[in-house]
Amino acid sequence: MGDDGARTETQTAIMEATYRALCEHGYADLTMQAIADEFEKSKSLIHYHYDTKEELLVAFLDYLLAEFLENVEATNDGTPRERLDTLVDALLSGPDEAGDFQVAMLELRSQAPYVESYREAFAANDDHLAELLADTVRDGVEAGVFRDVDPDAVAETILVLIDGARTRSVLFGDDDPVAHTRRAIDGYLRSHVLVDDQ
Amino acid sequence: MGDDGARTETQTAIMEATYRALCEHGYADLTMQAIADEFEKSKSLIHYHYDTKEELLVAFLDYLLAEFLENVEATNDGTPRERLDTLVDALLSGPDEAGDFQVAMLELRSQAPYVESYREAFAANDDHLAELLADTVRDGVEAGVFRDVDPDAVAETILVLIDGARTRSVLFGDDDPVAHTRRAIDGYLRSHVLVDDQ
Repeated sequence: MGDDGARTETQTAIMEATYRALCEHGYADLTMQAIADEFEKSKSLIHYHYDTKEELLVAFLDYLLAEFLENVEATNDGTPRERLDTLVDALLSGPDEAGDFQVAMLELRSQAPYVESYREAFAANDDHLAELLADTVRDGVEAGVFRDVDPDAVAETILVLIDGARTRSVLFGDDDPVAHTRRAIDGYLRSHVLVDDQ
Repeated sequence: MGDDGARTETQTAIMEATYRALCEHGYADLTMQAIADEFEKSKSLIHYHYDTKEELLVAFLDYLLAEFLENVEATNDGTPRERLDTLVDALLSGPDEAGDFQVAMLELRSQAPYVESYREAFAANDDHLAELLADTVRDGVEAGVFRDVDPDAVAETILVLIDGARTRSVLFGDDDPVAHTRRAIDGYLRSHVLVDDQ
């Protein structure tokens, strides 16, 4: 995300147009024209910034992580438990708010084995989220409010649960898996991570 | 799965050809011709049994469930803990053995929101698996070897973890999520489901 500060107003507008186009068309039917249709300025500006759809979508995955980090950083000064809850809520909030977008994201994920640049972007985002979760768990362990757990293993389990909930939410077209997963993560935190008097 | 007993030798051979074609081509590039190329008999036989690729793939999802049930039924007479382990191992074994197939299955899942018959087939399979897991948990509760848990909630949590592991396994192209998830499910069972002296 080193180029985050360098994203221009035009690039941000292209990313917002990409979000709308993905919600509207899904990934398989996404074309540069479909993105241009959602973009207020000239289509040539999109081609000026991004040579291919693939390049644009890699930038879009970067943009999603940057947006996510900006949202959660605003609440970065609570207790470790509060910060962990904020992260989990933010990671799970997608499917509730934008089902069509989650459908497009699962399509994009399913193409990762075929497109190295997608795979790298997803892996980079995931590493970043795993680190953020693990750092929060580590702070809780050091503060004595979490048990002496392996922060990386806890982070991985939370991410597995969240990815499972997202996939099932798309597959079965409702938000039940998300609500269920929020409860499952709470149960997991209570039984594995938090000290007993919390 | 009411038509399971009625699957002919030819239909089974078509299903096996479909499996090989999905591993070879993925879902997006799967054609009736690609399936025919993996099939020893005449292509017209495929068209005789299945009018469209969609119809064939719905039959294939049925076939996968039937195969799964046949595999796990062989070990249906252990303790509830053993049966639960067998189910979880069988559900997680896919990604280890056939990465290419899991890639194709995630593609197919990502198309479920667009194709009602896929959605229905996935939902039917999932209901069946959830019931099988919940029945096993219920048996354990009644036998006093599991705690007084909600069998349906335990089944759903296990399925969320398994779907998360499968998605991540495809996305990151390795089996680490599966091994990690096996440990996470074990930890979940120990802390939530099994009575303490097991």
